[in-house]
Amino acid sequence: MWRAFTDPELVAQWWGRGNPLEIERMEVERGGHWRYVEHSEGESHGFEGRYREVTPEERFERTFGWDGMPGYVSVETTELEDLGDGRTKVVVIALFHTTEERDGMLGYGMADGMAESYAALDGLLAELGS
Amino acid sequence: MWRAFTDPELVAQWWGRGNPLEIERMEVERGGHWRYVEHSEGESHGFEGRYREVTPEERFERTFGWDGMPGYVSVETTELEDLGDGRTKVVVIALFHTTEERDGMLGYGMADGMAESYAALDGLLAELGS
Repeated sequence: MWRAFTDPELVAQWWGRGNPLEIERMEVERGGHWRYVEHSEGESHGFEGRYREVTPEERFERTFGWDGMPGYVSVETTELEDLGDGRTKVVVIALFHTTEERDGMLGYGMADGMAESYAALDGLLAELGS
Repeated sequence: MWRAFTDPELVAQWWGRGNPLEIERMEVERGGHWRYVEHSEGESHGFEGRYREVTPEERFERTFGWDGMPGYVSVETTELEDLGDGRTKVVVIALFHTTEERDGMLGYGMADGMAESYAALDGLLAELGS
């Protein structure tokens, strides 16, 4: 599961929800940068940030920003918990500076987009597991 | 007063608290980047971020990070209020993602550093006004 979140080739297969995704940078280490560009309906959407804490196989924290709202930065924490039997619990927390910023991001369709991404991740995991 | 916060030549004279300060980037507009490097006691300290809202002469919001803690990003809001008689009230608010991050930054001497910077700004303004 760690690879699905940190290996550019795997991330490219689910994070874009079926849209082509370029992984321009992905330095999974403290202070490393990441930048993804998603192509959809003739538009490009860039997302980027910086890893601030990385515990391999277990947890990472990184900042998250979207080109459309420069300077509005949330912190995304991803935790993987091994449940045994080949199952892993994934907990992702997004922390915003203010309630308004959180609601603004939800207004841009963040929740639907995440649901589509995780559905794509489920599909990828099923393929990898087969 | 706006120039003291946005003109690189003026910022270089007070922000570093008497230490040499290089202004590597300073694009005072929505989405623009800024980066300052302060030299002190043989060490270099980089600070950087991105402008997210700019209302000339009145107000700007920008993200603020320090190289020593990559990915820990606060939002700094600076408001200038004209009080008449050549006086300006400056309100600077730093917003952190968590109380721990705020306290961590205070632990690095942020408050003392800011007091030194503002003392240097007072000196610069006195010079410019004379």
